Amino acid sequence: MKDRARRAIAECLHIATMSEEPCRITRRFLTPPVHQVHAHLRARMESLGMSVQVDAAGNLRGLWQPTGAGGKRLLIGSHIDTVPNAGAFDGLLGVALALECVDIAQELALPLAIEVIAFSEEEGVRYGSPFLGSRAVAGRFDTALLALTDSDGIPMEAAMRNFGLDPDKLTEAAMNTNAAAFLEIHIEQGPVLEAEGLHVAAVSAIAGQTRLTLTFRGQANHAGTTPMHLRHDALAAAAEWITVVEALARKADGLVATVGRVSVEPNAGNVVPGLVQVSLDVRHSHDEARSSVVEELVTRASTIATSRGLTLERIDRLDQPAVPMDERLTSFLTDAMEAAGFPVKTMPSGAGHDAMVMAARVPTAMLFLRSLAGISHHPAESVLEEDVEAALKVSREFLLRFASDVR
Amino acid sequence: MKDRARRAIAECLHIATMSEEPCRITRRFLTPPVHQVHAHLRARMESLGMSVQVDAAGNLRGLWQPTGAGGKRLLIGSHIDTVPNAGAFDGLLGVALALECVDIAQELALPLAIEVIAFSEEEGVRYGSPFLGSRAVAGRFDTALLALTDSDGIPMEAAMRNFGLDPDKLTEAAMNTNAAAFLEIHIEQGPVLEAEGLHVAAVSAIAGQTRLTLTFRGQANHAGTTPMHLRHDALAAAAEWITVVEALARKADGLVATVGRVSVEPNAGNVVPGLVQVSLDVRHSHDEARSSVVEELVTRASTIATSRGLTLERIDRLDQPAVPMDERLTSFLTDAMEAAGFPVKTMPSGAGHDAMVMAARVPTAMLFLRSLAGISHHPAESVLEEDVEAALKVSREFLLRFASDVR
Repeated sequence: MKDRARRAIAECLHIATMSEEPCRITRRFLTPPVHQVHAHLRARMESLGMSVQVDAAGNLRGLWQPTGAGGKRLLIGSHIDTVPNAGAFDGLLGVALALECVDIAQELALPLAIEVIAFSEEEGVRYGSPFLGSRAVAGRFDTALLALTDSDGIPMEAAMRNFGLDPDKLTEAAMNTNAAAFLEIHIEQGPVLEAEGLHVAAVSAIAGQTRLTLTFRGQANHAGTTPMHLRHDALAAAAEWITVVEALARKADGLVATVGRVSVEPNAGNVVPGLVQVSLDVRHSHDEARSSVVEELVTRASTIATSRGLTLERIDRLDQPAVPMDERLTSFLTDAMEAAGFPVKTMPSGAGHDAMVMAARVPTAMLFLRSLAGISHHPAESVLEEDVEAALKVSREFLLRFASDVR
Repeated sequence: MKDRARRAIAECLHIATMSEEPCRITRRFLTPPVHQVHAHLRARMESLGMSVQVDAAGNLRGLWQPTGAGGKRLLIGSHIDTVPNAGAFDGLLGVALALECVDIAQELALPLAIEVIAFSEEEGVRYGSPFLGSRAVAGRFDTALLALTDSDGIPMEAAMRNFGLDPDKLTEAAMNTNAAAFLEIHIEQGPVLEAEGLHVAAVSAIAGQTRLTLTFRGQANHAGTTPMHLRHDALAAAAEWITVVEALARKADGLVATVGRVSVEPNAGNVVPGLVQVSLDVRHSHDEARSSVVEELVTRASTIATSRGLTLERIDRLDQPAVPMDERLTSFLTDAMEAAGFPVKTMPSGAGHDAMVMAARVPTAMLFLRSLAGISHHPAESVLEEDVEAALKVSREFLLRFASDVR
């Protein structure tokens, strides 16, 4: 497994050179380096005896169909697009490990059909809309998206045709009833496994997410001539509320709440702020827990505003329910961890993944690997060889369990 | 006095039409509309029998030298430049009321020489450096300033020559020993008199001022994948500190402390802020009170940063001592209030004024008029006729007292 781990890491580092920019990893949906990635992965798939095609959404899909396997197949995959100036492992490692899974299944002579999917788009960078690849496979691709234009004014439909795809055939990209399950292997992109000294975890759910914007509107005043008791300082109000956000989130188990964006008017050192706009991002794997904290936070903001003679406005930006992973598949993963000699760990994913989209159509499970220092979406993104090896050992045990179950 | 009040207000509204911009009041240092203002005020001064000159710094200076007056003169004035999109009364009202003071002195046949000064520059807009006019009169004009350029790249020296001034004669603009005192009448630019239902106040001191910038440096992280206990959120730290700033300032009598500017990195809704820079502006009429609050606030910031695993950096921007007004002159003002039938009110000025610069060279006093809703530096800046009338009644009593004292 050590050799497989090294090969998967080397694969990621090699594909990292296929970029839109020299010296940086940037590979957006259907840009020229994606042709390079497809050619490279196709060769690897064919050397494994897989049949390969690119679907109408640009997903590269390789099928390993051994003799003796039934009609049902296991889908394994992740995405090959990146954010600008990305790391080498987000998405890509899941594809490299999917190919190692095929290799392992062949070595074990498992009578299990495996379809490896290298999703074309997950990050939402080029068209401001994420999960384009997995939405097509899940049969949830809204063709209205085809009219979106990128920063160069190129409509998505034209980008597809330029790449050699036929957007009229998008519905054919959808999985059919022979898909029995989907497994995604992905770096954690967070610091939890590192903090707990663990290699891997099974994902229990993709957290639901609320995003909203609050505006505290007070009165801009001269910082020198306005006594404290005559102020309606929008920033002092927002600051009081931000401390409440942190305190409540710390008390709520498994919840994260973040104020990440602040805009102040007029934002001058000698003027009492008249208006402050803040973002709120709340995530939890239970929707009720999330909603109740969000409503309490908005109520507290309103109380703070009123007590200071300010007004409060709320704009809802996103209310995305949590997506639980399939219990049976996830138990295969935790059993596999135990069989492979690792502590059993499950955790929610605070970030969105293709698994979230796929779960709407097929039983889905997800395996996380430790991210060094929790760093992702950054050139310093890194994985340890021992963690990749652990993921492979767990995957082997998972494949054994899944194959005997699906038979 | 009612007619004089109306005339002074009308004068301000008329001069407000002399602007760099149509439909907005913007009159920066030595711009073309200043010639119009000078021509208008010169005519008014000459009709009062005053001798008029423009000094090398562009200050318009009119001298009323009645027969029988001694060698000592009272200086009265304020500034005629404005901020962009200004109101009509900031500075200008003090000049209009200075001319009414000459008229009153003539009516009373006071044997008192009065020099009215319309300072050319106070706001610091054109060259980013304030008090240019009063600095020249106080003999504190640093000729290094002549090399400053405005937003069009015009050096101050060239602007002076274009206006018809001779910068080589700046030292001649300085007041000499015949200046006995300086009086500035100005709108409060704050809400205190309105909140207390008062027309006017004598200024006790121009508050000292500290400005600094603090940088809280934490760790930017993914808002979805970073649990609360593993964060080093720079904004949460800054918010905690901003609430401390407000609480301490509220407890310290006569002190104002403002966080007016915030910059957050990366300032994205889904990223835990890694770096936050905040401004701090603290003002008080006693320097020790100001310094001790500033040091306590920085200590508290440092404690907050350390307890959260962040670092703190401090950059000092300004440390300007308080400037007390002359006690004897100020007692003339408070006696004058009493004699004119108004409640005696003294208060510090939280904003800087020409009086602050003049006080370094000559006994100085300052009279504030109520600002409606505390609004200034805005087209809605306004004064009540009754407040202007009150200021004139107090000025009349002041002139009587000063004339008998200086004799």
